[in-house]
Amino acid sequence: MYLLHCFSQSGNSFKVAFMLRALSQPYETVFVDFMQGVTRDDGWRERSNEMGEVPVLEDGQRRLTQSGAILTYLARKHGAFGGVTPDEQQEVLRWLLFDNHKFTSYFASYRFAKAFGASTPDPAVMAWLKGRIDNAYRVLDKHLAASSFVVGTAPTIADISLCGYLYYPVEESGYDLQLQFLLLQKS
Amino acid sequence: MYLLHCFSQSGNSFKVAFMLRALSQPYETVFVDFMQGVTRDDGWRERSNEMGEVPVLEDGQRRLTQSGAILTYLARKHGAFGGVTPDEQQEVLRWLLFDNHKFTSYFASYRFAKAFGASTPDPAVMAWLKGRIDNAYRVLDKHLAASSFVVGTAPTIADISLCGYLYYPVEESGYDLQLQFLLLQKS
Repeated sequence: MYLLHCFSQSGNSFKVAFMLRALSQPYETVFVDFMQGVTRDDGWRERSNEMGEVPVLEDGQRRLTQSGAILTYLARKHGAFGGVTPDEQQEVLRWLLFDNHKFTSYFASYRFAKAFGASTPDPAVMAWLKGRIDNAYRVLDKHLAASSFVVGTAPTIADISLCGYLYYPVEESGYDLQLQFLLLQKS
Repeated sequence: MYLLHCFSQSGNSFKVAFMLRALSQPYETVFVDFMQGVTRDDGWRERSNEMGEVPVLEDGQRRLTQSGAILTYLARKHGAFGGVTPDEQQEVLRWLLFDNHKFTSYFASYRFAKAFGASTPDPAVMAWLKGRIDNAYRVLDKHLAASSFVVGTAPTIADISLCGYLYYPVEESGYDLQLQFLLLQKS
C-alpha cells in the first residue's frame, strides 16, 4: 500500500494523488502540517525529506520525493502514462522539467503568497511572478493549440504534472482556472 | 557531431557543454543572441525551441531542450554519469528536478537581474529570490556534508546540473562562488 505524505493545498501532492487514482492504485495519506511549518523542522527533514517538501511517497522501504521524480517512477513501475516510444518519454521528461522550472514553480509560489501567506505579499514580487507565469501559460497555450495532450495522443504524466495547480478555486490564485482547465483538456 | 545552441552567460548551456566535455564528445556551438531577445522571437521559437530557451542540442535529426532532459538523454546514450543502479538513477532525477525547481531556477534569475537586466532590479524581488536561493543552498550544503557527490560515490549529471551557475564571477551573482564551489567539490 502506497503512503502519500501530503496536505490538501499542495498541488504537487495532488499530482501524485491524481496519478495513483489514474493507475487505480490504493493509497493512504499521511497529513503533513505544512501550514504550521512542520516541513521546516530538522527532525521531519531527517525522517521524511531533506528537501523540506511534500509530497513524499512511501512504497515499501522506498521513500520518494519531488513530484516529477515520483510520477516518473510510478509511470515506469506500472507501465502507464509515461509516453509510448523513447522519443515520447524524452518529451515527457522535457515538459516535466518545464513544469518544475517555469510553470508550477512560479504559479505555486504566487498562489501561496496570495492565498496563504502570513502577511500581505509584496506587490513587486507578485508582479514579477505573474510575468513569469503568464509567459509559461503562453508557451503551453501555443503548444496545446496544435494537440490535445502535451505529448503524443493520450494523457501522460506531463499533463498530470502541468495541471497540478489548475483545479484550485480562482480566489486562491486570481487566475481563471476554468479557462486554463479548458486549455489543457480540449479533447 | 552535436550542435549546441547557446550563449556564454547561460549556465544551463554550460551544463550541457560540461557534460559533452566530460563524455569527450566533440560538438560545435551555435551562438544564440539571447541578450538581444532572439529567443523571444516567434520564428526562432518555431525553428528552435517553443519554450523560448537555450540550450538546444541537435543530435542529427533530434532537437533536445531543457538542460535536465538533455543531460538525461546524454547519460543514457553514452552510458555514463547517470547513476549506476536504478535507485541511483531515481535519485539523480530527484536532484535534477530539485535543481530546476528550487536552485538553478531562482539563482539564474537572481544573477541575470543583478548582472544583465536592462534596469535596476526591484529590491523586494531580489530579496525574495535570495531567500529562496539561500534555502536551496542550505538543503544542498547539508546533503553534501555527508557525501562528496550529490548521488552515490562518483559524479553524475545531478552534480553537473547543480553546479551549472557556480563558476561565474562573484560580481555577477553576489554569491561567493569559491565557497559554493568548495561545498560541491569537497572530495
